[in-house]
Amino acid sequence: MSETIRERLEGRVSYHDSVEEMLKRIQTDGLSSVFSRWEPQEKIRCKFCLQGLSCQLCTHGPCRINEKTGVDKGVCGIGADAMAMRNFLMRNIMGAATYGHHAFEAFRTLRATGEGKSPFKIKDEAKLKWMCEKVGIDANQDINKLAIELADFLDKEMKVGPDQPSIMTEAFAPQKRKPVWKELHIYPSGVQHEVENSIASCLTNVDGDYVSLATKGLRLGLSTIYTAQIGLEMVQDILFGTPMPHEVNVDLGIMDPDYVNIVFNGHQPWIGALTIEKLRKGEYKDEAIAAGAKGIRVVGSIETGQELLQRYEVDDVFVGLMGNWLAIEPLLATGTVDAIAMDENCSPPAIDQYAEKYQVALVSISTIIGVPGTEHKMPYYPEKANEMSDNLIKIAIENFKKRHGKIEPMVPKHVTKAIAGFSTEAVLGALGNKLDPLVDVITEGKIKGVVALANCSTLRNGPQDWNTVNITKELIKRDILVVAGGCGNHALEVAGLCNLDSVEKYAGEGLKEICNMLKIPPVLSFGTCTDTGRISMLVTALADHLDVDIPDLPIAVTAPEWMEQKATIDGIFAVAYGAYTHLSPTPFVTGAPNLVKLLTEDVENLTGGKVALGDDPVEAAKAIEAHIISKRQKLGLK
Amino acid sequence: MSETIRERLEGRVSYHDSVEEMLKRIQTDGLSSVFSRWEPQEKIRCKFCLQGLSCQLCTHGPCRINEKTGVDKGVCGIGADAMAMRNFLMRNIMGAATYGHHAFEAFRTLRATGEGKSPFKIKDEAKLKWMCEKVGIDANQDINKLAIELADFLDKEMKVGPDQPSIMTEAFAPQKRKPVWKELHIYPSGVQHEVENSIASCLTNVDGDYVSLATKGLRLGLSTIYTAQIGLEMVQDILFGTPMPHEVNVDLGIMDPDYVNIVFNGHQPWIGALTIEKLRKGEYKDEAIAAGAKGIRVVGSIETGQELLQRYEVDDVFVGLMGNWLAIEPLLATGTVDAIAMDENCSPPAIDQYAEKYQVALVSISTIIGVPGTEHKMPYYPEKANEMSDNLIKIAIENFKKRHGKIEPMVPKHVTKAIAGFSTEAVLGALGNKLDPLVDVITEGKIKGVVALANCSTLRNGPQDWNTVNITKELIKRDILVVAGGCGNHALEVAGLCNLDSVEKYAGEGLKEICNMLKIPPVLSFGTCTDTGRISMLVTALADHLDVDIPDLPIAVTAPEWMEQKATIDGIFAVAYGAYTHLSPTPFVTGAPNLVKLLTEDVENLTGGKVALGDDPVEAAKAIEAHIISKRQKLGLK
Repeated sequence: MSETIRERLEGRVSYHDSVEEMLKRIQTDGLSSVFSRWEPQEKIRCKFCLQGLSCQLCTHGPCRINEKTGVDKGVCGIGADAMAMRNFLMRNIMGAATYGHHAFEAFRTLRATGEGKSPFKIKDEAKLKWMCEKVGIDANQDINKLAIELADFLDKEMKVGPDQPSIMTEAFAPQKRKPVWKELHIYPSGVQHEVENSIASCLTNVDGDYVSLATKGLRLGLSTIYTAQIGLEMVQDILFGTPMPHEVNVDLGIMDPDYVNIVFNGHQPWIGALTIEKLRKGEYKDEAIAAGAKGIRVVGSIETGQELLQRYEVDDVFVGLMGNWLAIEPLLATGTVDAIAMDENCSPPAIDQYAEKYQVALVSISTIIGVPGTEHKMPYYPEKANEMSDNLIKIAIENFKKRHGKIEPMVPKHVTKAIAGFSTEAVLGALGNKLDPLVDVITEGKIKGVVALANCSTLRNGPQDWNTVNITKELIKRDILVVAGGCGNHALEVAGLCNLDSVEKYAGEGLKEICNMLKIPPVLSFGTCTDTGRISMLVTALADHLDVDIPDLPIAVTAPEWMEQKATIDGIFAVAYGAYTHLSPTPFVTGAPNLVKLLTEDVENLTGGKVALGDDPVEAAKAIEAHIISKRQKLGLK
Repeated sequence: MSETIRERLEGRVSYHDSVEEMLKRIQTDGLSSVFSRWEPQEKIRCKFCLQGLSCQLCTHGPCRINEKTGVDKGVCGIGADAMAMRNFLMRNIMGAATYGHHAFEAFRTLRATGEGKSPFKIKDEAKLKWMCEKVGIDANQDINKLAIELADFLDKEMKVGPDQPSIMTEAFAPQKRKPVWKELHIYPSGVQHEVENSIASCLTNVDGDYVSLATKGLRLGLSTIYTAQIGLEMVQDILFGTPMPHEVNVDLGIMDPDYVNIVFNGHQPWIGALTIEKLRKGEYKDEAIAAGAKGIRVVGSIETGQELLQRYEVDDVFVGLMGNWLAIEPLLATGTVDAIAMDENCSPPAIDQYAEKYQVALVSISTIIGVPGTEHKMPYYPEKANEMSDNLIKIAIENFKKRHGKIEPMVPKHVTKAIAGFSTEAVLGALGNKLDPLVDVITEGKIKGVVALANCSTLRNGPQDWNTVNITKELIKRDILVVAGGCGNHALEVAGLCNLDSVEKYAGEGLKEICNMLKIPPVLSFGTCTDTGRISMLVTALADHLDVDIPDLPIAVTAPEWMEQKATIDGIFAVAYGAYTHLSPTPFVTGAPNLVKLLTEDVENLTGGKVALGDDPVEAAKAIEAHIISKRQKLGLK
């Protein structure tokens, strides 16, 4: 990051003291980290790549576009706007397909559970029935049969092509959006179909038209949320329970070196949830004690951790969430981790040095993970979940024997309280199962509007989580309720913005009144980046309740520290959904003037949503507030 | 291309006189072309990209690796080998998904045809029944029901995950390969599943292990051929007839400006085949004559053209194939084209300048195509095929009125004869429906071995088709039979290597004897790049007949001018299939020493196949011959 940004936080690279403390140890121990690898790259960055004007697809390339010197096309003939948009679409395809993969795992887990072949249970029968009714499956059936039928249905929905209707979209999209999307030809098919169609479009010499490519991106975004994300989150609720608010512990201080510590990192809750339940029954406790430990604990890391945190109380078995992805290397450096079980992004590829230095067993519990140095590889099969969990616990106990007493632990003394586990159901429950109280407080202006923050964490625009925390403070100060998902949510939890103390400290007067009345924090922890769909369900309910379209609502979306490809497809969804969508850092499209204009201006005439850029959290928050006020005025609100 | 290579062909940029002639007109008329856009890019190429050491996935990038200056990892921690392999896998995913898209279109066309909703017919009932029997569908049913059942089956096979078996792989893979693939964990699922799994693996911070990524590539290659390509080619045979050898005309001289000329460009035969049949019935002839034309003609361009060429005789309606993708801009510059109907790659994105200058109507007949300036957009629905064809013909007639007499035509006087339409069935037919005669001539050494050439056309290593033509001449001179698919095949057809005259001119003594005996050319035109699967079927039949494994056969694969992402997935398939696979140009992996070693050496210990590099056609042919001789020796042949 540039020095000026660094100076804003007095030379720090993270908002969090715990991470700063661990980085000192990492440096002393001579290991590299995401933080230390930043500077050398900063010096050799490619400006063409930063602008989206580099293409490496075919053997006629690599090509670059430099209009100043008259090179305005690649060898094939592609221009700047299409090259940048194609690059951007390919990134979004990666995000969409990864959500698709997560959904695939969820649906096969539900099917195996219905068939009695997995160790999981249908925990939320009411939700299973609700979901079946919602999509037209007869809910008056045996619960296991329902699970199988729903799993088959959802799996098929991801595969729906243009010759069949998307029932999931029909069931979950805002009423007033559907005709808009049909008119724009962005009403989606299943995500697997849209992924295939979009990739084929990105092939050399297929789609060289930036408007056509952008349109495919919008459709892909809708497809991702409606045919992958919402279904998978509902299935996870069915299997593990619908999130309800409860107090939890976060930050690196949750670690205790005297326990066998198993960390679950990634996005998928299967083995983590199973392991918590197994350990709560006392399984393997004797083995752990025999190995010299006080017991065995499960530690939540990034999104897998948040999936667990949303649904499980913290106790002596499940101790909470360590933080977001930039805290992974610092976590491993505490010398307290016995096994890190990895299932999806983000597992940074150079943690083998940490595994070796601090005696950590690297365990993959998914086919997609491939961290170098991973000794234990267990591809996920729902039928094998029990065996996988057992093996993992045994690996961790064996590791404890090699770690404890040999690796000097260093645990930062930071533990923060957070209220995790908000969901549409939880919000409605708090409001007496109707939306009117929320409408009332928005109408009165006590809450000016709602901003969804869905996000990663990146060093590009400042220290870890600096932008995320600061834009959030600015928003809640302005009486704007923040609903958070993703690594940005973990940032806010660790920074103390998701607990009740933060009401007094940071919220504006109107928001404070409502928070105190409902006993909620000014930032509602809505889960992971995968919960973008869940957040949209709340907004959709609000729009349908008011009988208005999404662009009419006083809402916005911000991704103030997006890092990877799932974040951008969430962002593209938001634009298609009709939301003002703040993205920072700026995507790699700045060399494409027409594309930038399309995404930041012209698209508003189509979907009602648009991309807003800007890396200063105060300015970004002001612009969001101005947008919300303009929407309030159009609705006739003060 | 470098000057030394250019000089090899006396300053030319194409092997073909017709293309050279048209490039002069293009230059005079002030238009740019793939040929003219090459030089400016050559001056600003990124060396990091060329080596595979540039990554633009996330906002922590773009990153580069430069081990000389100590920058050996990206910010996330990924190393050179994994970065290059991930880039390479992403390219291959694009190819796989595009084949998947083509297969999707084929299967829905077959389904709609069975349902009586398309204008197509089941032309090869025997093949439909054979295919059904092959995959376990009861063939004793109404032909239309069979079509629907097969379409549903094939569609489902693309979606098969790790919880179900891949019936297509089981049915079409060589017997001795299956245990090898299972042992290596590369026995494939359906292509849509493997694509999703591979993309999710390529996401930032998921798979940072080059061996793991390469393994996924091999599985993806197998998946592409067995669950997409073979099925789609068989379906195209069912709908349009199994290719049988016949003499056709190729090169730009097939154009006649006095006709309404409709060009079909891309890879998918639907609307092209329908239009030929429609016009052969005399439809629209009066309208064309009323517009001042002598009639209406269909012109085959690149792979769509080859799909038609394989199955239709040339006559006054279907006049043949114009050439491969680098001839598209030259074709449009002849001023004889009324409509170019585009369905997949390769439709270069800057042909709008040609459309304007030479009065050509640009028509897309697929959802994936997006050429800037395309006025007529018709996404493909089998149910709408008739309407699409009618519209297209009308567009072309209207264009003729604006073109004829206004645009000065310029048609190079070059027409070459070729024998197109070889297939496994055709080869077996020529051999009296048994493989023994082929085995005998190989055993005797009259044919030393067989090389499959599947390929594009690129300027990277020399003039258009220079490498392709020269390696082929070298191989047939050495009594090696060449079986060709793709744009490389069109190169050989236009260069006169696929006709009977070439036997005397170019074939070695042994091969000459066999060619004369069977009345076949030394290069068998086996179709398109999509026919890689078809070619493999012949080799698989040979291996199973001899009860040996693929790596034991005296065969090899060459892609001497690969350009895009479908070519590399064909190449990766070949390596997994167990073949010596020559690739030129060198893929962008040279900055990754361990990866290069894996692909060119170590993988041979796993699959029996490997990548061979080298851009000199004589040297490459010698190396292939040496490989074939070594395999002959191991089989005890002289």
